[in-house]
Amino acid sequence: MNDDRRAFRPGRRRFLAAAAALAVAACRRAPPPPPSSVSAGGRRNYGDRSPYEKIVRSFNPATTTPGTGSSKTPLQDARGIITPSSLHFERHHSGVPDIDPSRHELLVHGLVERPLVFTLRDLERLPSVSRIHFIECAGNSGREHSGRPGADPQQSHGLVSCSEWTGVPLRRLLEEAGLAPGAKWLLAEGADTCRMARSIPLAKALDDVLVAYGQNGEALRPEQGYPLRLVVPGWEGNVNVKWLGRLHVLDQPAMTRDEAAYYTDLMADGTARRFTFVMEAKSVIVRPAGGQVLPGAGPYEISGLAWSGRGRIRRVEGSSDGGASWQASVLDEPVLPKAFTRFHVPWRWSGGEAVLASRATDETGYVQPTRVAIVAARGLNGTDHYNGIKAWRVHPDGTVTHA
Amino acid sequence: MNDDRRAFRPGRRRFLAAAAALAVAACRRAPPPPPSSVSAGGRRNYGDRSPYEKIVRSFNPATTTPGTGSSKTPLQDARGIITPSSLHFERHHSGVPDIDPSRHELLVHGLVERPLVFTLRDLERLPSVSRIHFIECAGNSGREHSGRPGADPQQSHGLVSCSEWTGVPLRRLLEEAGLAPGAKWLLAEGADTCRMARSIPLAKALDDVLVAYGQNGEALRPEQGYPLRLVVPGWEGNVNVKWLGRLHVLDQPAMTRDEAAYYTDLMADGTARRFTFVMEAKSVIVRPAGGQVLPGAGPYEISGLAWSGRGRIRRVEGSSDGGASWQASVLDEPVLPKAFTRFHVPWRWSGGEAVLASRATDETGYVQPTRVAIVAARGLNGTDHYNGIKAWRVHPDGTVTHA
Repeated sequence: MNDDRRAFRPGRRRFLAAAAALAVAACRRAPPPPPSSVSAGGRRNYGDRSPYEKIVRSFNPATTTPGTGSSKTPLQDARGIITPSSLHFERHHSGVPDIDPSRHELLVHGLVERPLVFTLRDLERLPSVSRIHFIECAGNSGREHSGRPGADPQQSHGLVSCSEWTGVPLRRLLEEAGLAPGAKWLLAEGADTCRMARSIPLAKALDDVLVAYGQNGEALRPEQGYPLRLVVPGWEGNVNVKWLGRLHVLDQPAMTRDEAAYYTDLMADGTARRFTFVMEAKSVIVRPAGGQVLPGAGPYEISGLAWSGRGRIRRVEGSSDGGASWQASVLDEPVLPKAFTRFHVPWRWSGGEAVLASRATDETGYVQPTRVAIVAARGLNGTDHYNGIKAWRVHPDGTVTHA
Repeated sequence: MNDDRRAFRPGRRRFLAAAAALAVAACRRAPPPPPSSVSAGGRRNYGDRSPYEKIVRSFNPATTTPGTGSSKTPLQDARGIITPSSLHFERHHSGVPDIDPSRHELLVHGLVERPLVFTLRDLERLPSVSRIHFIECAGNSGREHSGRPGADPQQSHGLVSCSEWTGVPLRRLLEEAGLAPGAKWLLAEGADTCRMARSIPLAKALDDVLVAYGQNGEALRPEQGYPLRLVVPGWEGNVNVKWLGRLHVLDQPAMTRDEAAYYTDLMADGTARRFTFVMEAKSVIVRPAGGQVLPGAGPYEISGLAWSGRGRIRRVEGSSDGGASWQASVLDEPVLPKAFTRFHVPWRWSGGEAVLASRATDETGYVQPTRVAIVAARGLNGTDHYNGIKAWRVHPDGTVTHA
C-alpha cells in the first residue's frame, strides 16, 4: 500500500461518482480472462504463500556476536490479531538451536518433592489448553523512549506478535512434582547454547503460565522455541523462555545475567527497577502510519493494535489532532485477555497536516501514558517497558512520518 | 503419537511412582548437553517449520481430470482452534490459478444501481473486519454416511479447517453499488479456469459474509483463493467462492452446475434437496482416535473439535461406551460463533474394549444426530451434509479403529 498513489475519492458522494465511471468501463468490456490455467505448482502437502507476497520480518543490523539479534513483525501488513508464525518477531541471545524433539527433555527439580523428567510425549499426554496471547519484547518501542523513533510500525513497534499457544498448564507439572517448603521462585532455563534463564515468582507460575508445544495450530517454530517454550501471558518476552529444558524451583530468584545485567530498568537516579515483568497497556496505529503515503484527502479508516499484560483492552481512543481531542474506536471481537485487540476509527482527512494517535485503556482502568509522563517518571537511561502514546504525522503531500 | 507404545502410568499414584523413579535418574546425571550450537540456518525473513516436523495434508488419489481433487487437514495433529494455513484443506474444481493481485479485479454488477469494479487496493482502503470461522466442505465425512469410513480423523473428517479471516463486509460493497428493485440473489464467480460459481440469497450476503483478502494474519494462500475469496460463515465450503472475480446480483438463483448437478442432497425417494447451505452442528474426537495406539490402561484426555454453522457450540458431551452414557466436556475459551471449539473430556481406560464418541449441541439447541437417524431421514443416496456422531473403537491391544 505504501506506494499507492492512485486517487482516492474524498467522501461518499464523490466515491460513488467515480465508481459510476468505473462502472461504465466495466459494462463495456467482457469479463477479464482467467488469469491462468491450472497451476503448474501442483499439489503441496504443506502449503506456502503466493510468490507475489514479499512481506518479511526485518532483522536488526548484524552484530559482532554470532547468534544474537532480533527481527521485527511487519505490523503495518498485519491482518486481524493472529501473527503468522513465519512472521513472528524473534530475539535470540545465542542463536536458534537445532533440537531433535524425540531427544528433548524437561527437567523439573529443586524445591520439589519428586524431581521429574518429561519427554515431549509425556507432555502431550497431559491435559492441554490453547489460548491466544501476545508476546512482547521488553525493549519493544524503546527507541521511542530514547528519541530515536522507528520510521514505520515494524521498526517502531515490531517486537510484539500474537499467537494461539497450546500446551500444558505449568501448574499441573508443579503439582506432579509437588512443591517443597520454602518454594517461592522458579528458574526457567533454555536449551540454547547460552542457556538463557529467567526467574519467575511461583504465584505467576501457578496462575496462567503454559509449557507450550503448539503455536497457531502446529508445533512451535524453531525461532519461537521448538519444541518447548514457556508462555508467561502478559509478561516481557524474555521470561517466555524458549527451547525450555529445565525448571528449577528455588526459594529466591537466581539473579541470572538476564535479570541482573539486563532486563532491568535504569532510572534517572541511577537505581534500577528489577523484575518489572508486566507489559502495560499499549497501542499503535498501523494504518495510516509512518512509511505510507495517502493518495488524497477523503475518508480513511484508522486501524491499529492494542494489548495489555494485565488483561483485556477495555477501550482504545483515536485522535487526529495529536491528542487534543479523542474519539472512541470500534474493537473487533473477540476481545481476549493479554492478546492483540484490533481497533478501527473512521477518519476524514482534510488534506492538511494531521497527527494521528491512539490511547489504550485496559480492564484495570490503566491508561496508556504519554512519552512526557514516562520520561518524567523514569528519565532517559532505560529503554525497556516503554509504552507511550505513539503519534504519526500526516503531511499535506500525503506522506506519513513519526510525530 | 501414533506409534508411542511406551508404558503410560495408570492413575495418578502409579504415575507419580514412576515419576519418582525417573527423578532418581535425573538427579544422578548432569544436565543434558545443549542440543546444538548456533543454528546453521541463519536468518529467515519468512520462517518455516522445523525439519523434524513432517505432518502433511493428505491428497485424495489422483483423478483423470487435471486440477480437480482435494486434500485433508490432519485433524489428529491439530492444536487449538486455528488451522495453519499450510495445512488448510483444499478442494479444487479446476486447479489453483496463478493470479497477480495487482491485475485482479472484482466486478459487482447485475441488479444494482451502479456497477462497480474494485481492485485489491480499493478493497484494502475500505473498513475491514477480522473473524475466526471454520470452512467445511459439504462432502466432509460423507464416507461415514455411505458406510466407507475413514481410518483416522484426517481421512474421516479432514475437509474442515478454521482460520482468522480478514476482509470487507460484503454488505458494504453492495451498499456502494446500490441494490436495484427485484434483487434477491447473488452469483459469486471465481477466476479459476472453470469459473466455479454459486448463488447465495441476498439475506445472507447482507448478513455476515466477507470479501476476504486475509487469512491467519497475512494474505490468503493460493489454495484458499488468493487474492480474494468469499467467506460465507457456517455455509458449505463450495459457496465460499475462491479467486473471487465477479458478483452478479440476480432476481433468482443462477442454477450453475455446482448447485444443480452437484452440491445437492439426493434423497431416498430420488428427489434432491437444493440450497442446503448450512453446515449443522458436528464434532469429532481427534485424540484418541483411529490410527492411534494407546500404550496402556490408565488416564487419558479425550480431545476433539466441534463446530456449528448456526452459531456457537453450547455443549459437547463425550462417551466411552458408544453413547450409552454421556459426560460433559470442558470447552476451551473463547467459544466463537461458526468457529472450531476445542473440547476436553477426562477418561480412564480400563484396558478393555471401549467406544469413544462425542455429541455437539449448538446455541440453537440443535443436537448432533446419530448416523441411524440421518439414514432414516435421507437414505443412502447422498453423502453431503453428513454430521452424524462419530465413534472410535479402542481395542484391548490399544489400537483404535472406526466403530
